[in-house]
Amino acid sequence: MAWTGSNLPAVGEYNQTVVLDAIRRHPDGSTRSKLASVTGLSSMTVANVCRRLLASRLIDEHGTRVSGPGKPAGILRLNPDGGYSVGVHIDPAVVTYVLVDLAGEVRDHTRSGTPSAQDPRSVIDEMARSIDALITTSGVDRSRVLGIGIATPGPVNIEDGIVLNPPMLPHWHKVPLRAALSEATGLPVVLEKDVTAAAVAELWYAEPSDSRDFAFVYYGTGLGTGIAVAGEVVRGISSNAGDPGHMTVDPNGPVCVCGRRGCVGYSVVPRALVERAQREGIMSGTLPAGPAGIAELDEAFSRLAAMATGGDQRAHAVIVDAARQLARAVVVIVNLLDIERVIFGGPFWSRIAPIVLDVLPGVVRDDPALVPPHAVRFTESAIPVDVAAVGAASLVFDSTFSPRASTLLISAD
Amino acid sequence: MAWTGSNLPAVGEYNQTVVLDAIRRHPDGSTRSKLASVTGLSSMTVANVCRRLLASRLIDEHGTRVSGPGKPAGILRLNPDGGYSVGVHIDPAVVTYVLVDLAGEVRDHTRSGTPSAQDPRSVIDEMARSIDALITTSGVDRSRVLGIGIATPGPVNIEDGIVLNPPMLPHWHKVPLRAALSEATGLPVVLEKDVTAAAVAELWYAEPSDSRDFAFVYYGTGLGTGIAVAGEVVRGISSNAGDPGHMTVDPNGPVCVCGRRGCVGYSVVPRALVERAQREGIMSGTLPAGPAGIAELDEAFSRLAAMATGGDQRAHAVIVDAARQLARAVVVIVNLLDIERVIFGGPFWSRIAPIVLDVLPGVVRDDPALVPPHAVRFTESAIPVDVAAVGAASLVFDSTFSPRASTLLISAD
Repeated sequence: MAWTGSNLPAVGEYNQTVVLDAIRRHPDGSTRSKLASVTGLSSMTVANVCRRLLASRLIDEHGTRVSGPGKPAGILRLNPDGGYSVGVHIDPAVVTYVLVDLAGEVRDHTRSGTPSAQDPRSVIDEMARSIDALITTSGVDRSRVLGIGIATPGPVNIEDGIVLNPPMLPHWHKVPLRAALSEATGLPVVLEKDVTAAAVAELWYAEPSDSRDFAFVYYGTGLGTGIAVAGEVVRGISSNAGDPGHMTVDPNGPVCVCGRRGCVGYSVVPRALVERAQREGIMSGTLPAGPAGIAELDEAFSRLAAMATGGDQRAHAVIVDAARQLARAVVVIVNLLDIERVIFGGPFWSRIAPIVLDVLPGVVRDDPALVPPHAVRFTESAIPVDVAAVGAASLVFDSTFSPRASTLLISAD
Repeated sequence: MAWTGSNLPAVGEYNQTVVLDAIRRHPDGSTRSKLASVTGLSSMTVANVCRRLLASRLIDEHGTRVSGPGKPAGILRLNPDGGYSVGVHIDPAVVTYVLVDLAGEVRDHTRSGTPSAQDPRSVIDEMARSIDALITTSGVDRSRVLGIGIATPGPVNIEDGIVLNPPMLPHWHKVPLRAALSEATGLPVVLEKDVTAAAVAELWYAEPSDSRDFAFVYYGTGLGTGIAVAGEVVRGISSNAGDPGHMTVDPNGPVCVCGRRGCVGYSVVPRALVERAQREGIMSGTLPAGPAGIAELDEAFSRLAAMATGGDQRAHAVIVDAARQLARAVVVIVNLLDIERVIFGGPFWSRIAPIVLDVLPGVVRDDPALVPPHAVRFTESAIPVDVAAVGAASLVFDSTFSPRASTLLISAD
């Protein structure tokens, strides 16, 4: 890898993303002089960029603001209808589709059971039909739909847009999703791991004051960790970063698929908690093995969480133990990357959130193994529902509109 | 954090670092047209930048190269004497000083025992004297010494240039090293954790074709891991990233200071290996506790490694077990960050390198817990001796001359 130079066209393109980003993150509206001050750009550059953004309808001018002498200043706001993105989250149990506008609002959503990919062709057709129906019923201007983002469990092959063989998706083996779906819909398609999409969404939705170095603990059927360093998501060399699963957090825990005891990705996931509760007689029933049990798992996990938050001591203890084990993994990640913010989210997260957030921060803080000499903050995702699907949609916006220092670099031969 | 824009002066400064970097990484010499092709910059920009670099004596023009019709092309090379940097590595046992030229060559070095910092003033005076003597005896042009880089065990406070209280450096408690040493020498001083300095050096010395996403496993008195993502070292929010020490790698291992068994930073470090060998009667003697035992540790560790490489089965087993435990931590890091290159180095590394490199790659490759769908490569550091001291020196060059996309951004109010 060698560094390449920069030039004026690259700067122009980059500055446009910077101004749009600043406008987007101030929904109350910005004046041109405010934008110049926030971005460090000259008034003339800001004026030129705003003219282009207005012409392309990505922003609107609403009224004026008077501050001091001189001409009243025009107030610029993002045009939510300047662009739309479709987000698709493929989960072992359910496929979620969302249509998101440029302001980040979910305008419409649908769900359907995850198809078995025994016939990949019919899966693609079904997804294309669902996306088409979503766009139609939402009533938005179809020509303004910028693309489709897909979030899927890993491992993936991003370069070729292929879902490899995720453990909980039987028959999803090397499905060339991106190319096929792009062909079927006529829209550009981007594909990422679900945890990566969730971390991208967190950056897309961040308040201007939010720290952009964090770990996103994604609590779904499995456990993932999206990592952002200096405002960029760490994707890794093959875009498969974010698997903390095989960290040992409980030497006496259950035996993981890797053959060791107490791997965090095996000990704290919803299935492990339900199975422990069933084994200890806290709940009745047993879960069917594999993907067949996912609907039952969802229901049983809700029951367990309700018991725990409702005062059942033994159910409570199951979740507290999971929180302690998760805390152990958090300490390892914080020590390695020296982050000061950990964000929690994912499809199963909200049900155990009150107990985990009650227990985990103190366990992390008091752990003698914690190295960095600063406090760690714990927050919930800015996207309370469907974070991976919304994240998938924000992949499209992010790739088009996010300022990125790499935009500034020329591609060399 | 908000993104700021870019402008022409920022681009000019950045392009100068890009051209210098390209020249530096091609020691056989580059023509201006080759530089234009490598960097993507226009011929005119390259010519202007080269004129500035020649005027500041950072590069030289040596002869010409004829390729095709037209005027023979001038051959540009880095001027090794264009700048120097002093690197200082503070280790529990020894302080190493190196004087490095712009081409990365160590021109001179000295060592001295690590002073106890009971009187910080006298420590600073002693360091300033050593640095002064190093510059004098090396015979280089003093006005071309750009600064001093210091690598120290963590935790550190980079912003204030303060060494906090590293475990193995008694009395080094909140020593404001940077300001005091800068005052005493009249040179700019930068301070980093030793593992960060080692990772920076690895990037500074990388071949153009080397991957710039890696983990640097630093095997010193303690264990650290410097991480580079897309050519930038991950320093973390307080510049204390890189501590993998409390990953559990052996549930039956010795009890760590954190109270848990088998933390990698406790199980695989030189002291643990020597103590096990002594306990099992493979070697005689016992190490004094704490920093007092460091010289003895060094000697005993060399003996143990020599026995192991010389065919002593039991000594060999001690190092093989450490390699397996290290492999476990490597898998966790690779899974989390999806890197494909792990680099080993540090003061104690070379002695166990043959055995670890014989064992560890296979253990990682065959571990069912390894997630990313690609091979992981294992290499030794490009800097065989004094990697942290040379790394400290390269901190100065890196902060002055390395291309960095962030150079392109305007500082806003």
